[in-house]
Amino acid sequence: MKLLEERIKRDGIVLDHDVLKVNSFLNHQIDPQLMLQIGDEFAAAFEEDQVTKIVTVESSGIAPALMAGLALNVPVVFARKHKSLTLVDHLYTADVYSYTKKVTNTISVDQKFLTASDRILIIDDFLANGQAVTGLLDIAKQVGCEVAGVGIVIEKTYQQGAQLIKDAGIKLVSLARIDSLADHQVHFAPED
Amino acid sequence: MKLLEERIKRDGIVLDHDVLKVNSFLNHQIDPQLMLQIGDEFAAAFEEDQVTKIVTVESSGIAPALMAGLALNVPVVFARKHKSLTLVDHLYTADVYSYTKKVTNTISVDQKFLTASDRILIIDDFLANGQAVTGLLDIAKQVGCEVAGVGIVIEKTYQQGAQLIKDAGIKLVSLARIDSLADHQVHFAPED
Repeated sequence: MKLLEERIKRDGIVLDHDVLKVNSFLNHQIDPQLMLQIGDEFAAAFEEDQVTKIVTVESSGIAPALMAGLALNVPVVFARKHKSLTLVDHLYTADVYSYTKKVTNTISVDQKFLTASDRILIIDDFLANGQAVTGLLDIAKQVGCEVAGVGIVIEKTYQQGAQLIKDAGIKLVSLARIDSLADHQVHFAPED
Repeated sequence: MKLLEERIKRDGIVLDHDVLKVNSFLNHQIDPQLMLQIGDEFAAAFEEDQVTKIVTVESSGIAPALMAGLALNVPVVFARKHKSLTLVDHLYTADVYSYTKKVTNTISVDQKFLTASDRILIIDDFLANGQAVTGLLDIAKQVGCEVAGVGIVIEKTYQQGAQLIKDAGIKLVSLARIDSLADHQVHFAPED
């Protein structure tokens, strides 16, 4: 997605330790118009896949997931990272380790929002080691539903997440694919 | 907002201890079309108020805030509840106590996303005791920016949050106003 790559080049900041900061438009401050276009892009990529529901993890996945849900006209469910008092029982849960934050969170989805007849599209902002997606795939397995695909805003091609998803035979669409952050520069993967 | 009230009546669940659960369309599973209409409603209410930025708190505020940002064509900033490794310094912070979850979170906003020349619109999903809004008002004070108003999806009129905002002389628009959850029923406030 050209517009997204240009935005990453213009506003993304490469920090040490392989961190790309895109918090000026994606995961702290959000550009709603860009998100709308991201949602349309996901919808175009998955329009033939009979998606019944979009699933993401709070918080950074919510904006792109919501716009994809708007374009595909399906509900969006975001897994919670912390159990709240109003969400105590009847949960599907999975453990997710965050390499960035160096903590393990238990993510959870209320059982009433996913059924075995669903075909879910998993959306997330970043794909690196694939921990969040793996947690959601684990939940999908518990539900017994089908996974129509995984849609990612920014993929780091050199980490294991993408391979994990492909090895599972699941359709993966990433709107921007980064091959390297060497020399504090963003190097995008060549077009397929 | 008639459509929202009807949805609350149809899908909202009143639990004990004064809890209204609307997680089937607002804060766990999200209805994107309803959010779009909520965003349009906020935009209509604040279109004359020279809003430059929308501010909310993760995670439940993100969906309505994003759609309000889309309709008003301004960026959306969501305050984080947990500091991440990529967001360590130059933060505005405030403490927010959650009566529902019985924990105090430090919310934070990167200083580069709010300036003294901003006129912010604060959006949140619920207004009860007003803790989250008070935290964001505290941050606005630190920034030195103006607060154009507060937009709330569901207000509980009988708790202190609304009065706190009005006492501060700040414009408050709530799309649904609940007077009571007595007898496990949702009783809406009469129209003004």
